Amino acid sequence: LFLKHTGGLPQPGLLFQIFSPPLVSPAAERLRYILGDDDEPPNPTLFTEMDTLQHDGEEMEWKESARWIKFEEKVEEGGERWSKPHVSTLSLHSLFELRTCLQTGTVLLDLDGYSLPQIIDDVIEKQIEDGLLKPELREKISYVLLRKHRHQTKKPIHRSLADIGKSVSSNTSECLGSNSYPVASLSHAQSRSMNDISDTPSTDQLKNKFIKKIPKDAEASNVLVGEVEFLEKPFVAFVRLLQATMLGGVTEVPVPTRFLFILLGPAGKAKSYNEIGRAIATLMVDDLFSDVAYKARDREDLIAGIDEFLDEVIVLPPGEWDPNIRIEPPKKVPSAEKRKSVFSLNEVGQMNGTAGGAGAGSGGGGSDDGEMFCGGLYLDIKRKLPWFPSDFYEGFHIQSISAILFIYLGCITNAITFGGLLGDATDNYQGVMESFLGTAMAGSMFCLFAGQPLIILSSTGPILIFEKLLFDFSKGNGIDYMEFRLWIGLHSALQCLILVATDASFIIKYITRFTEEGFSTLISFIFIYDAIKKMIGAFKYYPINSDFKPDYVTMYKCECVAPDPENAFNTVKKPEFASTISWTLDWTQLSKKECLKYGGSLVGKSCKFVPDLALMSFILFFGTYSMTLTLKKFKFSRYFPTKLRKLISDFSIFMSILMFVGLDVLFGLNTPKLQVPTDFKPTRVDRGWFVFPFGKNPWWVYLASALPALLVTILIFMDQQITAVIVNRKEHKLRKAAGYHLDLFWVGILMAVCSFMGLPWYVAATVISIAHIDSLKMETETSAPGEQPQFLGVREQRVTGIIVFVLTGISVFLAPILKYIPMPVLYGVFLYMGVASLNGIQFWDRCKLFLMPAKHQPDYVFLRHVPLRRIHLFTLVQIVCLAVLWILKSTVAAIIFPVMILALILVRRLLDFVFSQHDLAWIDNIIPEKEKKKEDDKKKKKKGNKGDSSSDEEVCPVSTFTASTHFLPQFPVPSVIKIPMEPLPPAPQNGGPHCLSRK
Amino acid sequence: LFLKHTGGLPQPGLLFQIFSPPLVSPAAERLRYILGDDDEPPNPTLFTEMDTLQHDGEEMEWKESARWIKFEEKVEEGGERWSKPHVSTLSLHSLFELRTCLQTGTVLLDLDGYSLPQIIDDVIEKQIEDGLLKPELREKISYVLLRKHRHQTKKPIHRSLADIGKSVSSNTSECLGSNSYPVASLSHAQSRSMNDISDTPSTDQLKNKFIKKIPKDAEASNVLVGEVEFLEKPFVAFVRLLQATMLGGVTEVPVPTRFLFILLGPAGKAKSYNEIGRAIATLMVDDLFSDVAYKARDREDLIAGIDEFLDEVIVLPPGEWDPNIRIEPPKKVPSAEKRKSVFSLNEVGQMNGTAGGAGAGSGGGGSDDGEMFCGGLYLDIKRKLPWFPSDFYEGFHIQSISAILFIYLGCITNAITFGGLLGDATDNYQGVMESFLGTAMAGSMFCLFAGQPLIILSSTGPILIFEKLLFDFSKGNGIDYMEFRLWIGLHSALQCLILVATDASFIIKYITRFTEEGFSTLISFIFIYDAIKKMIGAFKYYPINSDFKPDYVTMYKCECVAPDPENAFNTVKKPEFASTISWTLDWTQLSKKECLKYGGSLVGKSCKFVPDLALMSFILFFGTYSMTLTLKKFKFSRYFPTKLRKLISDFSIFMSILMFVGLDVLFGLNTPKLQVPTDFKPTRVDRGWFVFPFGKNPWWVYLASALPALLVTILIFMDQQITAVIVNRKEHKLRKAAGYHLDLFWVGILMAVCSFMGLPWYVAATVISIAHIDSLKMETETSAPGEQPQFLGVREQRVTGIIVFVLTGISVFLAPILKYIPMPVLYGVFLYMGVASLNGIQFWDRCKLFLMPAKHQPDYVFLRHVPLRRIHLFTLVQIVCLAVLWILKSTVAAIIFPVMILALILVRRLLDFVFSQHDLAWIDNIIPEKEKKKEDDKKKKKKGNKGDSSSDEEVCPVSTFTASTHFLPQFPVPSVIKIPMEPLPPAPQNGGPHCLSRK
Repeated sequence: LFLKHTGGLPQPGLLFQIFSPPLVSPAAERLRYILGDDDEPPNPTLFTEMDTLQHDGEEMEWKESARWIKFEEKVEEGGERWSKPHVSTLSLHSLFELRTCLQTGTVLLDLDGYSLPQIIDDVIEKQIEDGLLKPELREKISYVLLRKHRHQTKKPIHRSLADIGKSVSSNTSECLGSNSYPVASLSHAQSRSMNDISDTPSTDQLKNKFIKKIPKDAEASNVLVGEVEFLEKPFVAFVRLLQATMLGGVTEVPVPTRFLFILLGPAGKAKSYNEIGRAIATLMVDDLFSDVAYKARDREDLIAGIDEFLDEVIVLPPGEWDPNIRIEPPKKVPSAEKRKSVFSLNEVGQMNGTAGGAGAGSGGGGSDDGEMFCGGLYLDIKRKLPWFPSDFYEGFHIQSISAILFIYLGCITNAITFGGLLGDATDNYQGVMESFLGTAMAGSMFCLFAGQPLIILSSTGPILIFEKLLFDFSKGNGIDYMEFRLWIGLHSALQCLILVATDASFIIKYITRFTEEGFSTLISFIFIYDAIKKMIGAFKYYPINSDFKPDYVTMYKCECVAPDPENAFNTVKKPEFASTISWTLDWTQLSKKECLKYGGSLVGKSCKFVPDLALMSFILFFGTYSMTLTLKKFKFSRYFPTKLRKLISDFSIFMSILMFVGLDVLFGLNTPKLQVPTDFKPTRVDRGWFVFPFGKNPWWVYLASALPALLVTILIFMDQQITAVIVNRKEHKLRKAAGYHLDLFWVGILMAVCSFMGLPWYVAATVISIAHIDSLKMETETSAPGEQPQFLGVREQRVTGIIVFVLTGISVFLAPILKYIPMPVLYGVFLYMGVASLNGIQFWDRCKLFLMPAKHQPDYVFLRHVPLRRIHLFTLVQIVCLAVLWILKSTVAAIIFPVMILALILVRRLLDFVFSQHDLAWIDNIIPEKEKKKEDDKKKKKKGNKGDSSSDEEVCPVSTFTASTHFLPQFPVPSVIKIPMEPLPPAPQNGGPHCLSRK
Repeated sequence: LFLKHTGGLPQPGLLFQIFSPPLVSPAAERLRYILGDDDEPPNPTLFTEMDTLQHDGEEMEWKESARWIKFEEKVEEGGERWSKPHVSTLSLHSLFELRTCLQTGTVLLDLDGYSLPQIIDDVIEKQIEDGLLKPELREKISYVLLRKHRHQTKKPIHRSLADIGKSVSSNTSECLGSNSYPVASLSHAQSRSMNDISDTPSTDQLKNKFIKKIPKDAEASNVLVGEVEFLEKPFVAFVRLLQATMLGGVTEVPVPTRFLFILLGPAGKAKSYNEIGRAIATLMVDDLFSDVAYKARDREDLIAGIDEFLDEVIVLPPGEWDPNIRIEPPKKVPSAEKRKSVFSLNEVGQMNGTAGGAGAGSGGGGSDDGEMFCGGLYLDIKRKLPWFPSDFYEGFHIQSISAILFIYLGCITNAITFGGLLGDATDNYQGVMESFLGTAMAGSMFCLFAGQPLIILSSTGPILIFEKLLFDFSKGNGIDYMEFRLWIGLHSALQCLILVATDASFIIKYITRFTEEGFSTLISFIFIYDAIKKMIGAFKYYPINSDFKPDYVTMYKCECVAPDPENAFNTVKKPEFASTISWTLDWTQLSKKECLKYGGSLVGKSCKFVPDLALMSFILFFGTYSMTLTLKKFKFSRYFPTKLRKLISDFSIFMSILMFVGLDVLFGLNTPKLQVPTDFKPTRVDRGWFVFPFGKNPWWVYLASALPALLVTILIFMDQQITAVIVNRKEHKLRKAAGYHLDLFWVGILMAVCSFMGLPWYVAATVISIAHIDSLKMETETSAPGEQPQFLGVREQRVTGIIVFVLTGISVFLAPILKYIPMPVLYGVFLYMGVASLNGIQFWDRCKLFLMPAKHQPDYVFLRHVPLRRIHLFTLVQIVCLAVLWILKSTVAAIIFPVMILALILVRRLLDFVFSQHDLAWIDNIIPEKEKKKEDDKKKKKKGNKGDSSSDEEVCPVSTFTASTHFLPQFPVPSVIKIPMEPLPPAPQNGGPHCLSRK
């Protein structure tokens, strides 16, 4: 029951393109003409405020009713507060009415106005001129338009008393006069009552904190709508000022006004006027229409802008959606560039698409350099060097503190855990002290000089197993362990350097999501498994006496009984004590250890049991884990201001640790505590800080050690490079590029140094490195209300890493504080790290799909494109691979673990024969989900009916940064392999195979 | 760049109503004519399926690409699966294109077709007749339209092998012929290849489980779109069949087809055709348009339907929304009745608004009856009696089992807790045994006969305190407690009956949300407080030895030391033992209790401590609580099918209890267990099961006991009625009405009985009653995919309550099983009950608002209408009231607790002077949130520009069921008080004060 276009509109457009070949409509032609010229600076952001005319008795004022930066915020009718920002849902009605308004009303473009009264005078003059307004209404209109503006910031004074004495106040206002319009009294026109608007910004305006949300160069557009009795037909004006001008108290914030839309109409249709006001306000904040508004030459240009807008609107059917639901702003809105590019002559779309990071990291670029010896290393240094200073000054940020605390705790826990295990494995040739020293030294050197300072070095499981086997072998064959190890280390270091020199890191291009996620899932599982194993260990270490009955407490004791003298002499186990001490001792006063030491035996029901400690450990362990998880999620709750929530979330681990350390102290139980060595000396007294390379082993050992070294090299190489690939993933949006060769170079150098000093070997630790990156993620400060913060990238710097390792080093002196930390708390942190690093792994998401009925599955983009059974098959293959790796890891075969990861790459290559390239492109490439979706959307849009848009974004995009080509010298171009060596994402190739066949 | 309307459209409509007075447009006139007649039965639901033409090589087939019942489900391009149901987002473009299609294409209404080939023949014939189609294309079109339809249920055969041998299969299909159109070969026309459509439903169709989602009487509308090379302009047809006909394999499910929309067009615009197809499909499932489609007399009617649809669509600006985001179906969509009512002549809207429950509960209705003696009771019985049989047969449902288990556990825990406390307070005159017997007897009688069988009776805190004071008083003044108590009970019972007879329950109309929520929050807090207090008690009862060092286990013992003989003789505390036993005993073999009993003393470090139990209790307590919470939320997770999740959620408490009982058994620790009396006899041996009323106290005590009885009466009355008001709340959508008088009658009777038997007194327990209701809530089984299940009401019956109390009674025999349940697990359940009953209390939501910055607050409807500071003030008053009540409850003044709740009502009355009626209407009335929002939306819509809609819904609605008026005989009509005595919600009065002033 509508659809009438009285105005001089219908231009033949794209509308009936299915009936006629697509033509560029006059509207599009117009827009192309005014928008095509792209050399001009972009237009300022528009802040739109809509004020509606309120009649309070006979008095009138303009009351702010909504505002827009990007999304709409409404003043709640009775709530006297701002609604949440939401997507403006308009009615088609109001848009068409607005179109007619602009067709019939007054349009003044580039008016040279310096104050509101003058502008209004001009508008009214024009209306009278055009015969749209009776001259006798001039004063009335002017009077109405110059009423005071009340903004949402200002509390209505009369309201605060209103609830009790409402009738009183309304009576008084009525007394002021039954008709307060100054009917045609010219004397009034100049008087103050005629103009409530001051020229200078009011204090309310200046104090308004909302200004912070508005970009500095923003301009305002004011929408004034209202109903008045004296009009018979609507008074409509659209004004663009030549210069943005501060119009006194019209706008809520001191932002100069550029546009003014006025709609006054006869009484009775306030709701309609309101909707039209909302429509123009929404249009004014539309990226494309605001461009049109700035550049429009005449009325027709504006109409063309509305038509373009209408052409793009999204329509929801009335039966499926309730217009009163406020739609939350989406995570991401389609870029306006895309829409604009249709009209621009020089196809700006593509340029903008990649300009964001063009300045960064392309760096070396010259792929020819790669061919020379050490070319990769040279390029890495060349690429990283310019960033070196910024690596330091960019590190000074509050966020770094939480990252340092978090990673520091992870590092010392790791150092202590591995130190303890190494000590066990090597008979204390390498112990906790060596572990601390090595971690501090290797870590800080690496963070200082390596290619990717976000990587955290640590001892890892495979190396631990290798050391254990090596020590046993040395002991069994009479070879000096330390010297043997030194030579293996030296050989391995040399091999690493050879790998660097020959640019062998090209192999990482075979590391796809399949391998990467398999590896990191495995490491996460190991973290989780270890944490839980340690926890269960506590129950074995502190057995619970489940038969204990409180009433029979008298039955439970544990007494130290002196050994039977005869036996003691016969066994002569401890001859030095047996003869002298056993009779002089008060056996009942001995502790458990002493008792056993002196050959006594423990008798009693409670000897085997330790009360409380196991359960307390569990509470600490599980409490730390779940508290961290809860606090981390607190960011998404509704309570407290955003900043505080973010702080709590950032420091969640630290706070949980503090809390449960506090709880532990409160209970005062003797739970196992973190024990840091306090003296700076090797764990074993018979070794020094330097291992001399010659003298203890026969000469052939020096050469033969090259063989085990090869194993170590593979291990280190794989561990290091897979972690590096994960860290350098495109979704982390790193600006400063990777440095695979440089990283490996330093790992090799440090290996040699550690070998000489008899310290453990270090390699990139996956889980802690991911945690490091996660704790350094940056997001935009939300600008417009309702806009989602965008992930900007990671705070790439060397400061956090260096400080973490320096702290680790001086932790030896922090022992008095650290000794309060119970180990179960740290295991809880470990568990959290393992679980947290599982999140965001697509493989894990796919595993979860097994448990979800198809209709409840999340809208992952790969699910839209790959049949579920193919996805499940792929996941199953990964699970089987992981299971095999897990079993390997748990047996002695662990030493060939690194080789198995190479096998993983092979398995992935075999999958090329089972899965189509199309499917693999969706499941296995490493384009982050969101980009892919965007890309997908782009594709879809392209398929749409824009016959005339032919920007080169649309053909399979080949990024200018696909790779420093020296990484893939003679291999046939692989179909879906993404080479994340460079910081800039190559545009995803979701139509993979087809695209490549064109090359 | 569009907007062209070549067709013979623009009728002057409402569009430019702000420029011209609103007129009823011809389109509206048309719709009014065809829709106005409302006596016809409603049209069947339409199931719409859209099939698109796929070209596989030269072969063609129709592939299902989307379907609609209410929301859209799309076949994912590559995913070969259904997308989640979502709101169809259309482009304005496609809607206008569709409009043109219908204007220019063939429209055949009421075609008498029995098979697809015949229908297609008819359509083509018509097109050729009208000159729209060249006759030579007849065969080609017919061939295309009769291709096979492949539905999403069918796995494509060639695809399963495709991934490996794709190229092969595509080659073979090409071999079949480069042009497989049977060009004008009439012999082909009859051949099987000409018609792939069978007449009988295929097995695939019959096996399709989707049919369950489609209403039985549904009809199908099929949309076929595709591009073919031989056409130069589109071939469009809209067909309505005279009779819905099964068209073989065209539809996915065996549903007869009524509508057919065909769009074939020249190649190159598949996307456009697709969008048009989606547009018509969306229209077909629109409630209003489908009516139009069924009743349309000609093409113009359909166009008018589209115009009406366009008039109502919701528009999202392109810059603020990404059209690729699939919008989840909203919780509730605006009813189509509203839209239809505009066109119907006899204003059906209002009728439907209240018809839903008109059959139920209005019952007694005749308000005159209320004036007579016992009128309320009489009415209650008259109202409840008809439901009595259904109260039994409606109870047999799987859901009842979980409710019974849940409530049973709550009841016995309560019975044991209060039994224990009463035993302490009354020196075991009333103990656990009495508590069990009384609960079982009173509860089952109440559930069997009372007005509101959903209420669960229990001992309550205030009564416990009263008994304690009474017992102390009796003891101190030499009065026989049991006899005194009997007389108080009798007096009180009499007073209750007098209250019933005088219809005193009218007072509940002053119980607004304020009082109600204050009371139930208090009770919830008591639950939470008690649970935590008990838990902390465990730490006191089982002290932890925090100094314990595992190494010094030898130092910890606890020995029983025989008393010093001299002392023993001197103190002569236990003469009978001291002389004889103390020397014959082996003191070291005595248990703690025995040792103390015989006068020994405990010596040793471990005597004071009990290991593990406290921590284990905590783990059980907190574990049960959080596991229950987690399982309850599991309903909203994505894992497992909906039914299984619902089951898990329903049985969450039971499962958590099982799990932690299992854990407790596993550890085998001696945690405190539930101890149920096993012998059926009074706790104290010197009392029987009947209290004789005379003989032990002086005669005046019989009369004087009326005074304390008054206190008990007030207490019982308030406790009972507030809980009843909460249970009978409108948001519970009870059909069977309340019975306040009948409830109180039975409480009185049971009180007398309990007094005679010396059992505790019983009254409605708030938290358990709410839990009872929650566990019996019913929801619609989702019909259309994407539609949200609606809360239907509560399973109102007497079965669950009766079984719960019978079980409680026979729990005495279940002791062997129940003794495995540790008390901490039950405290965990208590904590959960307390926390769960806080949810959904608006007061609690308002408390949370204090912690939320305004912009993060949820969109509560009252926040839209009442200024935040007024809300905060109101909340603060409530908090202060609660604090005062809490303090009172904790002191001896607890005995005047019921009087204080009366004071709460008074405070609420005073608030009338502080808050405006408008504000109170929003904060304090008891219309549930959702209804209010709906009402709000309705209002808003009304304010819209529908000048011609004047249904009487719009003026302040006064429900026909506001109250059986005998409850408010001579009071001035209060402004916002809702009297929830009747099952039907009076329409909310959000414009409260204004409405009432009209009365």
